[in-house]
Amino acid sequence: MINKTITTLLLNWYANPYHTPIFIAQARGYFRQENIKLAILEPNTPSDVTEIVGLGNVDFAVKAMIHTVEAKAKGFPITSIGTLLDEPPTGLLALQSSGIKSFKDIVGKRIGYIGEFGKKIIDNLASSAGIKQNTYSTVCVGMNMVDAIVRTNIDIGIGFSNFQQIELETLSGEPTVFLRIDQLAGLGCCCFCSIQYITPNSILQKNPNLAKGFLQALVRGAAFTTEHPEEAFELLCQLKPKLNNEMYRKIFIHTLPFFSRTVANIERDWNKVGNYAKHLGVVERDYDISTCYTNEFLPATPYSDLKAIALCTEDK
Amino acid sequence: MINKTITTLLLNWYANPYHTPIFIAQARGYFRQENIKLAILEPNTPSDVTEIVGLGNVDFAVKAMIHTVEAKAKGFPITSIGTLLDEPPTGLLALQSSGIKSFKDIVGKRIGYIGEFGKKIIDNLASSAGIKQNTYSTVCVGMNMVDAIVRTNIDIGIGFSNFQQIELETLSGEPTVFLRIDQLAGLGCCCFCSIQYITPNSILQKNPNLAKGFLQALVRGAAFTTEHPEEAFELLCQLKPKLNNEMYRKIFIHTLPFFSRTVANIERDWNKVGNYAKHLGVVERDYDISTCYTNEFLPATPYSDLKAIALCTEDK
Repeated sequence: MINKTITTLLLNWYANPYHTPIFIAQARGYFRQENIKLAILEPNTPSDVTEIVGLGNVDFAVKAMIHTVEAKAKGFPITSIGTLLDEPPTGLLALQSSGIKSFKDIVGKRIGYIGEFGKKIIDNLASSAGIKQNTYSTVCVGMNMVDAIVRTNIDIGIGFSNFQQIELETLSGEPTVFLRIDQLAGLGCCCFCSIQYITPNSILQKNPNLAKGFLQALVRGAAFTTEHPEEAFELLCQLKPKLNNEMYRKIFIHTLPFFSRTVANIERDWNKVGNYAKHLGVVERDYDISTCYTNEFLPATPYSDLKAIALCTEDK
Repeated sequence: MINKTITTLLLNWYANPYHTPIFIAQARGYFRQENIKLAILEPNTPSDVTEIVGLGNVDFAVKAMIHTVEAKAKGFPITSIGTLLDEPPTGLLALQSSGIKSFKDIVGKRIGYIGEFGKKIIDNLASSAGIKQNTYSTVCVGMNMVDAIVRTNIDIGIGFSNFQQIELETLSGEPTVFLRIDQLAGLGCCCFCSIQYITPNSILQKNPNLAKGFLQALVRGAAFTTEHPEEAFELLCQLKPKLNNEMYRKIFIHTLPFFSRTVANIERDWNKVGNYAKHLGVVERDYDISTCYTNEFLPATPYSDLKAIALCTEDK
């Protein structure tokens, strides 16, 4: 086995406050303490991520649950080994001034989507609602959804309530409308877009300790983020100075309820998303969704601060 | 069956930001929409709560997981039907100026506890650490732990990092020390004090729909709190104007990661706390911890906003 000197993690989006546990683990040396020299990479086009990790070109990646199912269905040998964000509410986002009040108002509008799969979801929702595809248009906008709305290039796009909705409110200075996809699709709150840590299966086979160390660091990163939010946001801003403003502070606060503290894959949510993927025809009816994830690389005892444990062990 | 006109909920503590989902459900009419006229009651002495709900004098109460096990062990016929707060970090809290740095420094100090069970935990931790009981003193301080530290009546007490630690920092203007009980007791993060919704078993037998409606309203309250944090805090302050200051806003923000969004009892945490209760001798080794809780009264689909569902159903 080649002695790896650097480990790569490809994010799903430009670095933003919902990645705080990752940057905390980096800034506070949690990866280093696991002998991991981590390079955090950012994509320009989010829909590239699945293929890059699927081909084994990076060691780890961050990606939505439903995209993980889609990648598996395409034959990419990957597995989700943990959760960054638990069920952040995802929806169709527009300015109130667009006149869009409910899903039927998409008729005559331009809908932005991130990658090919987003278009599939929009078309399926429209079809379920009896809306013909030729009555609305779709535009691929990648990560620039909010900008595309502000520039009036699209009328509505997909995003999180704790991220893109706040961006849009702040950058436009106008009130917004948010139509939740879990409700439109009848999924039951709120799972459609839990955000996972995924890895090529080859890592799990050849270097399981790397995956374990990676997750140990991230559990500590999540604990620090949720238990010391001001310090965590300040550390994030030291690493990413462009996030040091009130908009991203607000996004960070709104994201606090959604950070996974256990970092564990949640069976219930995988089943929900798996059923939705079956409904969309992404995977066969008899597809075994449990092959998409594993919790076996998570630390058994997710303590927040190993130093503190050492201290109290000493006491005894 | 008597047609109940009012339903009572007894809190575990004075009304504070960690009760926000309850007050949101009240303020936004979620209880009313379930035909529940809810009276929210506050205790003066937290350790009274178990007995009051245990005797069936209130319909619902809020209480820590470990106290629920203790109450069951005492023979009170109660059951936890849901979770308000998931594993908020609980610890021994002191001012740095006390000189306390680790658990062994309790020798010669005055330790505040809330109720009889808190004293049991302190004495057990001391015993495990080889510290004799006559080398420290314990003082019952009820809900006034922080005030007792500020007044120098005690040196150290038990509290949450997202609540009493912030109170103490703010009110004293001094840095604090926090020794986590999950670490001192070797529990594994962080369960010791998840906060539950409990009810006399007679409610579940005679009026299961009341329990279902109660939880339906609370699931919606938790969703609103976590998805609209500024509005939620503002609504809380309208109901409880004494909370309208920067200290409680900070406590609210620090509590956001700990609100249970599913409101479900977590088996893993009950097992952890059950084992701790066995270790403390509160229950027998063969006690079946699963008798303490049930998730069967939770709504099947915890949507955040029923109006929105109605809207999208209309669309289809």
